[in-house]
Amino acid sequence: MKLAVIGVGLIGGSFALALKQAKLASHVVGVGRNPANLKLALERGAIDSIAADPAAAARGADLVFLATPVSYYPKILSSMSLHAKAIVTDAGSTKRDVVAAARNAMKEKISQFVPGHPIAGAEKSGVAAATPELFRNRRVVLTPLPENPAAAVSKVEQAWESCGARITKMNPDEHDAVLAAVSHLPHVLAFALVHDIAARANAAQLFSYAAGGFRDFTRIASSHPEMWRDVCIANRDRLLEEIDRYSKNLGSIRKIIEAADSAALEKLFSDARAARQRRLDGEFES
Amino acid sequence: MKLAVIGVGLIGGSFALALKQAKLASHVVGVGRNPANLKLALERGAIDSIAADPAAAARGADLVFLATPVSYYPKILSSMSLHAKAIVTDAGSTKRDVVAAARNAMKEKISQFVPGHPIAGAEKSGVAAATPELFRNRRVVLTPLPENPAAAVSKVEQAWESCGARITKMNPDEHDAVLAAVSHLPHVLAFALVHDIAARANAAQLFSYAAGGFRDFTRIASSHPEMWRDVCIANRDRLLEEIDRYSKNLGSIRKIIEAADSAALEKLFSDARAARQRRLDGEFES
Repeated sequence: MKLAVIGVGLIGGSFALALKQAKLASHVVGVGRNPANLKLALERGAIDSIAADPAAAARGADLVFLATPVSYYPKILSSMSLHAKAIVTDAGSTKRDVVAAARNAMKEKISQFVPGHPIAGAEKSGVAAATPELFRNRRVVLTPLPENPAAAVSKVEQAWESCGARITKMNPDEHDAVLAAVSHLPHVLAFALVHDIAARANAAQLFSYAAGGFRDFTRIASSHPEMWRDVCIANRDRLLEEIDRYSKNLGSIRKIIEAADSAALEKLFSDARAARQRRLDGEFES
Repeated sequence: MKLAVIGVGLIGGSFALALKQAKLASHVVGVGRNPANLKLALERGAIDSIAADPAAAARGADLVFLATPVSYYPKILSSMSLHAKAIVTDAGSTKRDVVAAARNAMKEKISQFVPGHPIAGAEKSGVAAATPELFRNRRVVLTPLPENPAAAVSKVEQAWESCGARITKMNPDEHDAVLAAVSHLPHVLAFALVHDIAARANAAQLFSYAAGGFRDFTRIASSHPEMWRDVCIANRDRLLEEIDRYSKNLGSIRKIIEAADSAALEKLFSDARAARQRRLDGEFES
């Protein structure tokens, strides 16, 4: 199988490395904006050749993997001439906007696009951080379209299975609602905290007293700014709902603190701790 | 030196283990509410004997280490009969309320109380998680009182140095303002997020799609509920200021997202990432 990777960063590079390791991809052609990063991708064996642009990369490819910020999709998808059996999939963190952009750009070829989202981000960016193990035991959500033939979906599933990922399917609406709550909102909250601390006159002092908890809490504020800009804007209706819901909830907790209501505060903290323990640790251990 | 540890949990247990390892403490007497935990502390060698209550533990002690939730301090401090050279220090996460409580309970013996705060929390609780390495290279803030003789402060510094901690001094006001921003606020934000997700009808689904970023972001929501209840209430004036500041800042970001202002959003995210990289990673690597 000839694989084209559009955007050879952490995600694109890790996907290429995994498919090559599984011997599913015999040749990987990569394209990207950063020549130094592409050179490193060649050196690391993530790609076998460099194409001048996405159209050139996609020419003759059996599988095209889009791993650029989502805002580049329309231009990329419009430029590609796919052969009849080629499949395009992607790694975009939002799916409603991606599907709309793909329909608009690909027209009748939309049946060849199987949208996907590996839930395996990291605060690192670039192919330097890529690893074939990135997706092992991580969830990948596919949001297949009514137009997709079963064989197209299977091909994408097979690729993710070779990465060791756990595949689930949703519709794009449900995907965007779920991710707004457990991914997009936390990213905004972490960016907001770091931005606020950094803007203060005593920022250096504050950061110097930040301990492991702060470091963990804000790790996602080291995520890729351009990617997260696109995510927040593409999914903004859902994200705004989540921000409003969160703000209201924070307001309730503020009232409890202001009233020095020990019992209510301890119950709230205990409930949160118990839920996290039960649900999240369990999930991650399974 | 005879050390009394009031509250042999993660912090008290780790302090005892470190002082014994450094051969600074020849005998450690522990007291606590949970008999199974105290038994484990004996087995782990964190303590050498168990006292019936804080007054019994403090009798004859050269150094008393308070590591209970702060709300227990008044009762504990009132009950103790200290010999003239005994020093009391603590691990409370707030300092203004601790100093006020100690003044009230200890009267003229306040000169024997040197307030402290090791900034080395963890989401684990109990002596099972204790380790003599917990404080290595971590900051410990001392907020000495005007009444403290130099020798009393030195004794506490020596104890923390034997733990490998980096000691700094502040006044209680400054301590509480700094910690409200970089510790107390993030804890409230994490508890709020987990509490909100856990309360939803589709909580199980949401948690199951939460990835590493969510897990890191919410790790501090597994912190000790009773301790954090006390912290939030004791430092509530500063914490409310921080919550209001944060809410306002989140509101500004909300407006940028609503307006789909790509440039402003990317700048904000880039600034946050750069600040975190420069300040926090640098601090932790040094």
